[in-house]
Amino acid sequence: MAVTTTTASEVCEAAKRAALDLGSASTQAKDAALAAIARLLEERAPQILEANAADLADEHAGGLSDALRDRLTLSAERITGMADGVRAVTALEDPIGEELDHRTLAAGVDLRKVRVPLGVVAVVYEARPNVTIDCAALTIKSGNAIVLRGSSYAERSNGALAAVAREALGEAGLPEDAVQLLAGGGHEGLAELATQDRHVDLLIPRGGEGLKAALKDVATVPVIFAAAGNCHVYVHADADLEMARHIVLNAKVQRPGVCNAAETLLVDAAVADEFLPAALADLHAAGVELVGDERARAAVAEVEVGAATDEDWATEFLDLKLAVGVVDSLEDAIDHVNRNGTRHSEAIVTGSQEASERFTAGVDAAVVYTNASTRFTDGFEFGMGAEIGNSTQKLHARGPIGLRELTTYKYVVRGDGQVRE
Amino acid sequence: MAVTTTTASEVCEAAKRAALDLGSASTQAKDAALAAIARLLEERAPQILEANAADLADEHAGGLSDALRDRLTLSAERITGMADGVRAVTALEDPIGEELDHRTLAAGVDLRKVRVPLGVVAVVYEARPNVTIDCAALTIKSGNAIVLRGSSYAERSNGALAAVAREALGEAGLPEDAVQLLAGGGHEGLAELATQDRHVDLLIPRGGEGLKAALKDVATVPVIFAAAGNCHVYVHADADLEMARHIVLNAKVQRPGVCNAAETLLVDAAVADEFLPAALADLHAAGVELVGDERARAAVAEVEVGAATDEDWATEFLDLKLAVGVVDSLEDAIDHVNRNGTRHSEAIVTGSQEASERFTAGVDAAVVYTNASTRFTDGFEFGMGAEIGNSTQKLHARGPIGLRELTTYKYVVRGDGQVRE
Repeated sequence: MAVTTTTASEVCEAAKRAALDLGSASTQAKDAALAAIARLLEERAPQILEANAADLADEHAGGLSDALRDRLTLSAERITGMADGVRAVTALEDPIGEELDHRTLAAGVDLRKVRVPLGVVAVVYEARPNVTIDCAALTIKSGNAIVLRGSSYAERSNGALAAVAREALGEAGLPEDAVQLLAGGGHEGLAELATQDRHVDLLIPRGGEGLKAALKDVATVPVIFAAAGNCHVYVHADADLEMARHIVLNAKVQRPGVCNAAETLLVDAAVADEFLPAALADLHAAGVELVGDERARAAVAEVEVGAATDEDWATEFLDLKLAVGVVDSLEDAIDHVNRNGTRHSEAIVTGSQEASERFTAGVDAAVVYTNASTRFTDGFEFGMGAEIGNSTQKLHARGPIGLRELTTYKYVVRGDGQVRE
Repeated sequence: MAVTTTTASEVCEAAKRAALDLGSASTQAKDAALAAIARLLEERAPQILEANAADLADEHAGGLSDALRDRLTLSAERITGMADGVRAVTALEDPIGEELDHRTLAAGVDLRKVRVPLGVVAVVYEARPNVTIDCAALTIKSGNAIVLRGSSYAERSNGALAAVAREALGEAGLPEDAVQLLAGGGHEGLAELATQDRHVDLLIPRGGEGLKAALKDVATVPVIFAAAGNCHVYVHADADLEMARHIVLNAKVQRPGVCNAAETLLVDAAVADEFLPAALADLHAAGVELVGDERARAAVAEVEVGAATDEDWATEFLDLKLAVGVVDSLEDAIDHVNRNGTRHSEAIVTGSQEASERFTAGVDAAVVYTNASTRFTDGFEFGMGAEIGNSTQKLHARGPIGLRELTTYKYVVRGDGQVRE
């Protein structure tokens, strides 16, 4: 699909028309489209890789960091992974048409509350071509049209992938316009997309804080923001300290650049002297830079722990850095988390059922863990097949955004002439 | 409760603290608080009526229209009605703690998705003292604290009613600060309330378009807007025309000043000549001002029908006025509704099951009716006990906002040391 010069308004209007058809498509037809995407991805792998190579060879891409370049790079294996991901979505239950409630009102009319697609979902994302297919698969299965606004770094790769999705829709007898790729257009283009109130039902920004700030200023369409994950692990006085070491290490270092990684370790004063030396030695050995409050620093002699600033407690490092604090009680831990956390994922390590329950009830977050790593917060891990983002808002969707979270409901009322008295 | 000079920030912070306790309160304690509100309302009726009389006697209230004055006025009967409303909410199922999902993840951790309160709900409303109690009852039952920002016209009445709710909470051993009454403070006060991101989880404006516009500009807390209801009744070619007359008349005149009243009548060209003369005569006799397109005007000789402007089709008259249009097909009707409607409540009158299904699927609205009046869109009519507002958004809540719509969910994950591989 050539990137055209159509405006965001035209693209979104076409998506809205397509959404009306896709919204009432059968599960069979949607699954056929997904099967065709998986097949075509593998058939077209050579062309997709060629487009990707051109993106990577572009002068423009010269300045990318190794990490970003890696995210942009496709391979035969990664394409197979994308196809497998689409097949996993195919196997999920179709949420559309689910009856959420059914009753007869006092006046005798029949009321059903039925799950329906949102309509048009727009996704703004960075130079990760796989997101193009992941998101298209989730929106097709949930009966939504999608407007994809990728990065200019991935223009050719995204074009090849979106063309596969559109062709697959056509094969299945569904409207190709249900998958739309929007050329960049810079900040102006973003603002145009974010103000298509009549055509866009939800916008999901996947990307850094800069993108979110830019959208907060201009967006008039509904947006689900995935705020940063400033996640905590709290080691309670009744914790199994070996388990706690294992969990803290995993939550910090297994993949430090993601939102469900831990950024702060809180330790109960009762076990700080026993726990911290070994735990911080583990972290130090794994290359983690440590900063801490006075008591944490005093508890550890062998490992260098810098002085934590107020800002450190509120920062999502997204890197091999951890803030370490000592708290006097469960209540102090809950209070620290609620003041500094971003309502993403929070963990307590404890052998006490009562402490687990109090922490779970008291902490305001999408996911609260007891005796497990914060790293499990993920649509795939949660059995939702995949995710189109991860919400730290409380309204509509909390945590991973999967098929159900891409729906709304409609009340369908049928009578035989009833009026209100 | 005397209106104090505390700031919105202090009030919201106190509400947040109270919300933490109320969120984990038992159904029994919450129901005891509601029972106490109902009892105290009746016991304190003389004092409440005295406060209300002082509001009505205030110089300030001199300029109120008869309709607004009526809404501000309380009576012994109205107070009994409020108490009965609170008892109806008591009888509803407590949504908190409901398990929405429960599964064991691949890694062996136990995941439960549990319904929890939003936290602090703020409601901004006009000079209708009964809203104070209606909203407090819904938020208490759903475990939320509430910040009420009423009108200065109802200051004394609201103070007396909020004092009853606070006293009732105390009687039940729950935090009185879970019900907060905020003094007006004009536009500045509104902006302060609408930017309490750390303390307010949802703001619901109940009021006119001016209030909504003011909030759109300043709000940083999540807001559920209840847009205007530009509702349509479409009379299909296969309609029972007697039924259609009855429904149109009810939808327009039974209570024209509310959002679920009809503002436009669409008639299929096939039945326009047969239907319109009698239907418009009914409406005219009921005092409805009629405007129409050329074909509608040509179909009726006896009744005066003005020329409808483009603006008329998009206007919520909230009055005894109706726009009348003739359409060539079901598709044209759907198209007209989707272009002009506000996604509130839309009705088709038809004897055809197929037409009903196509209209229901094609029209984008919270509630779609077949052979019934649009006037049923209401939390009480829907069996939700009451409503705190009516959403025309698609995200989070659509249609009446009752107990469930005042909740979110939290994933509660428990393991025995699992980490992500």
